[in-house]
Amino acid sequence: MKCLILAAGKGSRLRQQAESKPLLPLLGVPLIVRTIRTACKAGADDFVVVTGHAGKRVDAELERLSNNLHCPIKTVQNTEWETTENGHSILAAETLLQDENFLLLMADHLFEPQIIRKLITEPVPDNGLSLAVDQQFNNPLVDLEDVTKVRCAEGWIQVIGKNLEVYDGYDTGIFLCTPALFDAIRTASKKGDTRLSAAVLELAQERRAKAVDVSGCFWIDVDDKAALERAEQALLHRLRGKVHDGPVSRWLNRPLSIRISRYLAKTGVTPNQISFFSFLLSVIGALLFSLGSYPSLLLGGLLAQLASIIDGCDGEIARLKYQSSAYGGWFDAVLDRYADAFLLFGMTWYTWLNTASALVFVIGFFALTGSFMVSYTADKYDGLMRSRGGSRFRIGRDVRVFLIFLGALFDQVLPVLVFIAVVMNMETLRRLWVCRK
Amino acid sequence: MKCLILAAGKGSRLRQQAESKPLLPLLGVPLIVRTIRTACKAGADDFVVVTGHAGKRVDAELERLSNNLHCPIKTVQNTEWETTENGHSILAAETLLQDENFLLLMADHLFEPQIIRKLITEPVPDNGLSLAVDQQFNNPLVDLEDVTKVRCAEGWIQVIGKNLEVYDGYDTGIFLCTPALFDAIRTASKKGDTRLSAAVLELAQERRAKAVDVSGCFWIDVDDKAALERAEQALLHRLRGKVHDGPVSRWLNRPLSIRISRYLAKTGVTPNQISFFSFLLSVIGALLFSLGSYPSLLLGGLLAQLASIIDGCDGEIARLKYQSSAYGGWFDAVLDRYADAFLLFGMTWYTWLNTASALVFVIGFFALTGSFMVSYTADKYDGLMRSRGGSRFRIGRDVRVFLIFLGALFDQVLPVLVFIAVVMNMETLRRLWVCRK
Repeated sequence: MKCLILAAGKGSRLRQQAESKPLLPLLGVPLIVRTIRTACKAGADDFVVVTGHAGKRVDAELERLSNNLHCPIKTVQNTEWETTENGHSILAAETLLQDENFLLLMADHLFEPQIIRKLITEPVPDNGLSLAVDQQFNNPLVDLEDVTKVRCAEGWIQVIGKNLEVYDGYDTGIFLCTPALFDAIRTASKKGDTRLSAAVLELAQERRAKAVDVSGCFWIDVDDKAALERAEQALLHRLRGKVHDGPVSRWLNRPLSIRISRYLAKTGVTPNQISFFSFLLSVIGALLFSLGSYPSLLLGGLLAQLASIIDGCDGEIARLKYQSSAYGGWFDAVLDRYADAFLLFGMTWYTWLNTASALVFVIGFFALTGSFMVSYTADKYDGLMRSRGGSRFRIGRDVRVFLIFLGALFDQVLPVLVFIAVVMNMETLRRLWVCRK
Repeated sequence: MKCLILAAGKGSRLRQQAESKPLLPLLGVPLIVRTIRTACKAGADDFVVVTGHAGKRVDAELERLSNNLHCPIKTVQNTEWETTENGHSILAAETLLQDENFLLLMADHLFEPQIIRKLITEPVPDNGLSLAVDQQFNNPLVDLEDVTKVRCAEGWIQVIGKNLEVYDGYDTGIFLCTPALFDAIRTASKKGDTRLSAAVLELAQERRAKAVDVSGCFWIDVDDKAALERAEQALLHRLRGKVHDGPVSRWLNRPLSIRISRYLAKTGVTPNQISFFSFLLSVIGALLFSLGSYPSLLLGGLLAQLASIIDGCDGEIARLKYQSSAYGGWFDAVLDRYADAFLLFGMTWYTWLNTASALVFVIGFFALTGSFMVSYTADKYDGLMRSRGGSRFRIGRDVRVFLIFLGALFDQVLPVLVFIAVVMNMETLRRLWVCRK
């Protein structure tokens, strides 16, 4: 699927933040890169970007991105970007887009892939276009002063413009176009208006501009500093949506890890580096446990809980910066297993030093084995529960580490070990039973 | 795909073994059940079985099987089975098979699904049939006295019969037929020969009988006691073909477990029961380790190795008796992890009793963790190695348990623990490194 992206403007209202608006970094990733990567996720695989201001630097960024994505990104320079409207930028790309329908996006509009998926499932009108329209009037991310509005009837756009008094929804800036758009721009241009919205109005008057409702989907036009702030908050807020978060993760770890991720995203730290750092904290915590005194136990417990919080950042950074990978998830899982093992053995050693009874090693053995087995059986069990629609086991790693932290805090290590040993092995047996058919 | 199976004969040469030949059990599974289940694996999903001798009992067996497989199995009684040839049995099923091509199998021929897969990938001649022909003249499973031979030219059968002097291959008794077969039987019958091979000869003379080469595939006609014996040996021998067997499994465990499975197959023991029994043996072995004396250590080591041998039988029985299931494999894997954990902890406890140094628990911890991690990372790593064509890790469970056995035999438990601790954790780190991209 071809995709045209308009990135010619200067973004004067964001001048302080970056020299070029498309290159403006949001949580460590330039706006234009976010737009292209999101479109990629929805299936676009051939890009044309119209550049203007700071064109050379945008070109360089896009060349790097093209190599990373293994996906062609052509650039077209609109040399008259300072004096012309955005319809002019679209015409500059006409020769590359004459043959087939194409997506049309704005470099400074962030959105979720779902909007494009909705847009392309509906047939585009012959010699017309479809526009993704947000009909959620209370969308807090919309800047009412600045947004383009549309008025529709039976799914067809009737009028479009910034100053409509009566309207049904907002123009998200995400279009699926036929090449007829180019003629519509020329027609509107002859009448004296070269803006894209004038061309859409031309098509609308001939019932060739369809509105596709995408209410409820995330999108935002990053036009000024306040919008940039709102966009950052929105991206961070979307990280909370992970359905698999356990209770400790949901109420304690995730709110904190998101705050940490906000800063980490702006550095060059990779998710795997975060996973490893979290693992190291756990190992140090375990070593502190094994010293046998209460102060070191307490410090170890704090480190373990901190490691558990930071362990959320790797996935968050990966999602915020399009760095998710199957290897990353696996690397994190393997290190988590080692971290669990070290922490449980450290607790066992602490109890051994304080009781001098070797029987604690039997309890430690069962705690270690049970924890491993719950992880070992998780994939199969979770897969089964998904297909059966049942609920997942609620004592996940977040709860386990929190119990360890509490055990350290109140110097009640042995009860926590016993609890983990009993619950984890019972859970494994329960899974063997539940899955048997 | 429809499938006609001839099961009318009495099998007089096998009279001592069972009252009905189709119901004759081979490694615990009646011949007719093996035929139908194998055809199912190759894609057949609608069966017609012509019964004769002991028809009621065959009917009852097939009704059970039909319920288990969720697959229709109709039976047609050939009441004149004692006085007529097999062509007569085929005609008895004509009304059920007039509309489409169908597989034709003999209830007493065992074979691997691959033969049917080869047969159905080649187009069947218009108004004719295809016959799977074995051109491997030194096939030790063929009874030269009894087998039907074929002479071919350019892939077409020229002549077929038991007494050919010059021939190119053996009739495997596995056909893909068009409904024209019924007319061919009537034509041959009018000439005085109602046998299937006479009808094939009729078609062959009109260049309507194709030979499909299935040389190298497993098949056997179970016609007498010697053939039954050969079939049993062949099925057992095929169990050795598991590519993933480690060296200890290949040279020690598998040869012994196959001998055990030969007896177990004839009982009602299920694969999961065997998995659990093997697990119990390991736990008892671990408890014997933990007593701390050499005699109990030795006995524990022997039990652990015996458990490892018997651990091969669950999979073998599952394959021999069509009882394989995803759950069974998972159940076995989970119990193996527990068995590993118990054995390693038993060894640790033994060393602790004999050295009184708590540091052995640190070594035991690393051995336990390393073993778990190698299992935990196995799926991902093996999948990757398969796609990259690389080799698998050779220190599998068979080697691990054998090392434990040797450690017990020579009273060198600590060196084995150290070895397992070092090798297993190094291997996990290596996997993290190799898979990183």
